Amino acid sequence: MSPIETLFTRAKLADGSLKDIGVSGGRIISIDPSSAEAPLAESVDLGGALVVPGFVEGHIHLDTSFFGDAWIPHKPCTNGFDVHERVAFQAQNMAQAAPMDERARNQLDLCIANGSTQMRSHVMVDGSVGLKSLGTVLAVREDYRDYIDIQLVAFPQSGILKSSGTPQLMDEAISMGADLVGGLDPASFDRDVEGHLNVVFGVAEKHGVDVDIHLHDGGTLGLFTIEQICSRTRALSMQGHVAISHAYGLGDLPVEAVKRAAETIAASGVSIMTNAPGNHAFPPVALLRTAGVTVFSGSDNIRDSWWPYGDGDMLGRAMMIGYRSGFYTDDELKAAFDVVTDSGAKALRLDGYGLKIGAKADFVTLKAEHVPEAVVAIPRERSVYKAGRLVARNGAVIRA
Amino acid sequence: MSPIETLFTRAKLADGSLKDIGVSGGRIISIDPSSAEAPLAESVDLGGALVVPGFVEGHIHLDTSFFGDAWIPHKPCTNGFDVHERVAFQAQNMAQAAPMDERARNQLDLCIANGSTQMRSHVMVDGSVGLKSLGTVLAVREDYRDYIDIQLVAFPQSGILKSSGTPQLMDEAISMGADLVGGLDPASFDRDVEGHLNVVFGVAEKHGVDVDIHLHDGGTLGLFTIEQICSRTRALSMQGHVAISHAYGLGDLPVEAVKRAAETIAASGVSIMTNAPGNHAFPPVALLRTAGVTVFSGSDNIRDSWWPYGDGDMLGRAMMIGYRSGFYTDDELKAAFDVVTDSGAKALRLDGYGLKIGAKADFVTLKAEHVPEAVVAIPRERSVYKAGRLVARNGAVIRA
Ligand SMILES: [Zn+2]
Ligand SMILES: [Zn+2]
Repeated sequence: MSPIETLFTRAKLADGSLKDIGVSGGRIISIDPSSAEAPLAESVDLGGALVVPGFVEGHIHLDTSFFGDAWIPHKPCTNGFDVHERVAFQAQNMAQAAPMDERARNQLDLCIANGSTQMRSHVMVDGSVGLKSLGTVLAVREDYRDYIDIQLVAFPQSGILKSSGTPQLMDEAISMGADLVGGLDPASFDRDVEGHLNVVFGVAEKHGVDVDIHLHDGGTLGLFTIEQICSRTRALSMQGHVAISHAYGLGDLPVEAVKRAAETIAASGVSIMTNAPGNHAFPPVALLRTAGVTVFSGSDNIRDSWWPYGDGDMLGRAMMIGYRSGFYTDDELKAAFDVVTDSGAKALRLDGYGLKIGAKADFVTLKAEHVPEAVVAIPRERSVYKAGRLVARNGAVIRA
Repeated sequence: MSPIETLFTRAKLADGSLKDIGVSGGRIISIDPSSAEAPLAESVDLGGALVVPGFVEGHIHLDTSFFGDAWIPHKPCTNGFDVHERVAFQAQNMAQAAPMDERARNQLDLCIANGSTQMRSHVMVDGSVGLKSLGTVLAVREDYRDYIDIQLVAFPQSGILKSSGTPQLMDEAISMGADLVGGLDPASFDRDVEGHLNVVFGVAEKHGVDVDIHLHDGGTLGLFTIEQICSRTRALSMQGHVAISHAYGLGDLPVEAVKRAAETIAASGVSIMTNAPGNHAFPPVALLRTAGVTVFSGSDNIRDSWWPYGDGDMLGRAMMIGYRSGFYTDDELKAAFDVVTDSGAKALRLDGYGLKIGAKADFVTLKAEHVPEAVVAIPRERSVYKAGRLVARNGAVIRA
């Protein structure tokens, strides 16, 4: 057994116990009851702070936020929400914004400072931007490798069939370094569910990568699309490798229909991502979890062309999930926390996640009595450790 | 004109202008363009921070929160939500909690530190606690008079007709120092809309005080009760003196019915309080404002027997109102901010509110570019001034 390089003493775990956490080579190699004796290894006294695994930011857009850049007032659509017009507004906004890599860094700093140590970001790949955004974000990811682990999804923001050359671009995006294939409202955007999914799952199968599809379509159309995605997932034995982001259809259908859908989704090993939107029906988190569905979360858009909200804080997101879901008991608040930690790790198939021996030493210290209190109080005082190294404290990233 | 006692220099107002604010005797006596010259009076350099009026916490319960006390896990009702069972749970919880005055102080410190300088709190008055809670909160209010202005509502938590002796207690509560008469779901709680309102408006008329009624009843029953309250308000010429808190019925009826109701509410000068709840339909803020209804807000319960949420931050509440209402444009974000500032002042009929000459020097400095950014970013760095005196900075109350 390798010797402990750093011993984190007096860490209060979620069960209330006080432990000393030994770290070596960026991994947790020991978790023992806190001892009154002076530790031998280099030690960091956590002083009884609550210690939780680093948060999983499961859905973000590193390429499109204006956070940290000049304020861009939200421009409403001309005649009610129109996704094509919004994409056009986004192109206009991005033309006048700071360079993408600068904006991506701003957003990463925000997320890391708030305690996210793992992330999945969608990055636009379409006929207009080609693979340029992906190239930029790949380079930024490399620069941040000691701060946060990032999965990138090739995201067809302008549709796959409607945007010329996109199927080929999706394929190239994976070769270039994207980790997953994305998708976007196969029915309402491309008007061709099967054609859209043929490309998504085709590229995924060819490269052996996972899938994460944006699905805003609601009601029975959304439900139908979910069923089609589940069916393809099972046919390709991709259980555990497919996620649907938003899945609004699960939020606005009768509970009996949603229960049946939840069984299908669970049996297909498809994960559901929700950010608990403010004025839109969203998937019933408790019902899905009870059915065995992995529900994870993310900030989604942060201060971009789609809306002005978002703070990059996955603990705050857990509060919002609980608040919007009517979670009041300690067990319910723990469930909201699970969504932004362990369930996120499961959906992203993260290796070595959690406070356990052998896992990466990625953790956050919080000034809170326990997890339920942390979820409702969202304490700002935090220290964030990545691979055992302090990477952020009280809202500021610490450079090596 | 009295000489300036303190000059607050380089205050950025909501319109972006940089001003020097002169204060004397706790009031604003001058607002002039910032000058490069060294000021003569004792001066405080605000350094270009955004300066906004102190927030209006329009609905809170100072007697029932456990904030700052030991954590009490939320206990769900035995067979779905039952307000009588919840009141019983509350009594059990309060019997084991820290003394009420200590808990009220904890909650006040939280609110003041977040920037509230004006507050309306409901205080339980019923057959079980009598006027005891009111006595406690009145004493605490006196101790906090230099920190925050507080209106107290005699709140019949156990109903008026169902709880023996409550009509008499409501009357005595006003004589004792409560500022308003409260009420609670006249239909579903007391099962007698007219009987309940007879007492509420009877006591109000006798003492010449305002009214603020909790109304959770939804749908057409809620709407009917709103109409009855509006009708009595007009009959007694109490326009501007009556508020309905929650008014869930406005959130779950067809928009045409709500539009008609909004016209009645506006014509009756009745204000509507909403805290933008998480998983419950709530009044459409924009529609009501457009119709001329004064919409204000409050934290309502903070970590008490009803739910574990709440942080006493009215700027965060403005974000929640915007988030839950789908407010994205700058004008919409400003509307959310207005709900927790000027509209709150109007609903509470506050004298001398706002950043204007002659008003109380109650203001908050924020690290934000402008109001829309403040609403979405909820900056934590704040200084809070009451009557020109610094009462809190960055989350901590400063004792004189
Ligand atoms: Zn997205
Ligand atoms: Zn209340």
